[in-house]
Amino acid sequence: MTRFRLTLEYDGRPFMGWQRQNHGPSVQQALEEAAHAVTGEDIAVHAAGRTDAGVHATAMVAHLDLAKAFTPFRLMEALNARLRPAPVAVLACEAVADDWHARFSCTGRSYEYRVINRRAPLALDAGRAWRVPAVLDADAMREGAARLIGRHDFTTFRSAHCQADNPVRTLDRLDVEADGEQISFLVEARAFLHHQVRSMVGCLVLVGRGRWTPDDIGRALAARDRAELGLNAPPDGLYFTGARY
Amino acid sequence: MTRFRLTLEYDGRPFMGWQRQNHGPSVQQALEEAAHAVTGEDIAVHAAGRTDAGVHATAMVAHLDLAKAFTPFRLMEALNARLRPAPVAVLACEAVADDWHARFSCTGRSYEYRVINRRAPLALDAGRAWRVPAVLDADAMREGAARLIGRHDFTTFRSAHCQADNPVRTLDRLDVEADGEQISFLVEARAFLHHQVRSMVGCLVLVGRGRWTPDDIGRALAARDRAELGLNAPPDGLYFTGARY
Repeated sequence: MTRFRLTLEYDGRPFMGWQRQNHGPSVQQALEEAAHAVTGEDIAVHAAGRTDAGVHATAMVAHLDLAKAFTPFRLMEALNARLRPAPVAVLACEAVADDWHARFSCTGRSYEYRVINRRAPLALDAGRAWRVPAVLDADAMREGAARLIGRHDFTTFRSAHCQADNPVRTLDRLDVEADGEQISFLVEARAFLHHQVRSMVGCLVLVGRGRWTPDDIGRALAARDRAELGLNAPPDGLYFTGARY
Repeated sequence: MTRFRLTLEYDGRPFMGWQRQNHGPSVQQALEEAAHAVTGEDIAVHAAGRTDAGVHATAMVAHLDLAKAFTPFRLMEALNARLRPAPVAVLACEAVADDWHARFSCTGRSYEYRVINRRAPLALDAGRAWRVPAVLDADAMREGAARLIGRHDFTTFRSAHCQADNPVRTLDRLDVEADGEQISFLVEARAFLHHQVRSMVGCLVLVGRGRWTPDDIGRALAARDRAELGLNAPPDGLYFTGARY
């Protein structure tokens, strides 16, 4: 048996999310079916993060175990051929130690959230960014973001469906970068709660619009109460951009 | 009658191109039908450039004439509402002089051509860039591009269907910018021949792959013969990015 580490790009639009579902297609299912078609084996694919419906990835990391012998390059090529036309691509593939695990060995995850700050609908980026028509103040959002950095109980910013035992997480980075009409939120932590990135971005956009002050972010955090959440950003703008080991 | 200038973004994938066709949807038709739905008038929309099937725009410029009174803002909002769900958006709208013409008053046009230089298929940018698996030498492509700058007979780089009387054009800019796996060709001229950008990019990619030398670009240009064209790049990577007046 050989364990292979995969780096994956996918467009989240046609999927119910990473994880296999009974009610629709998932990225995991697309990969497991491609791996089965290539090898004839029943394959489970494990990922560093389980993205929601409509969430994208530029560099998700995953692993699978194969009994049959493959070079990493041949496996990558075969998977990419079988994945077509699903918008999932294997960018890199390497053999790793049997005890290496895409999820449990992961020591850091990064996301980017893309906002397009303009009035006109998105023709080129429909489903690929969140369009916010009201003018956003990037400096105010940076001030708000600073309140979230560090180790906190993020209960306010977690989904009601979050299955984590502990709502405490350490947020290492939440940068706000403005470039023309695009505003990117660059986020890093060892691990995230369910909906944490979208919930933080949603509230920061309230700050950018002037509906919340930066201090309101601190107050919402301190409340440790989901009812204090201002706004959950849509999945469209969210990209899983990397896993660290 | 008031003439309005529109700035448009569109995703070329679902369209047969800018121009109205009998055999499928076009950007022009989508706009003319939206304008008719908004005003009840029979509207002709004229553009600075007539992009081919599958070619995109981040800032196409067009105009239309309305008998009914509209503020530019209300017209823009109404068109955007009626264009949905077609991937065409009006980014800006202003009233202009009656003798201003999106095509005939235009004194400069710019395009960007996006290549993604990697082996893996495109999941996020399928139809939105040209994937080239072979490693490309950006410096060699820059050397080749320099041979095309200036006033030349571009017969080699024009489509057999090109309707221009004169194959002489002045190419003002053809920059090659590399950023990670993405290579962008930034191109400017007063006007272009049909397929000129795609033909130039196709041959420069041959140079980047080492199949042609930069001198081969000069030789192909001097031949003034379509048969000397090495490769026509696909429409997927081409974006109309601006018109100057």
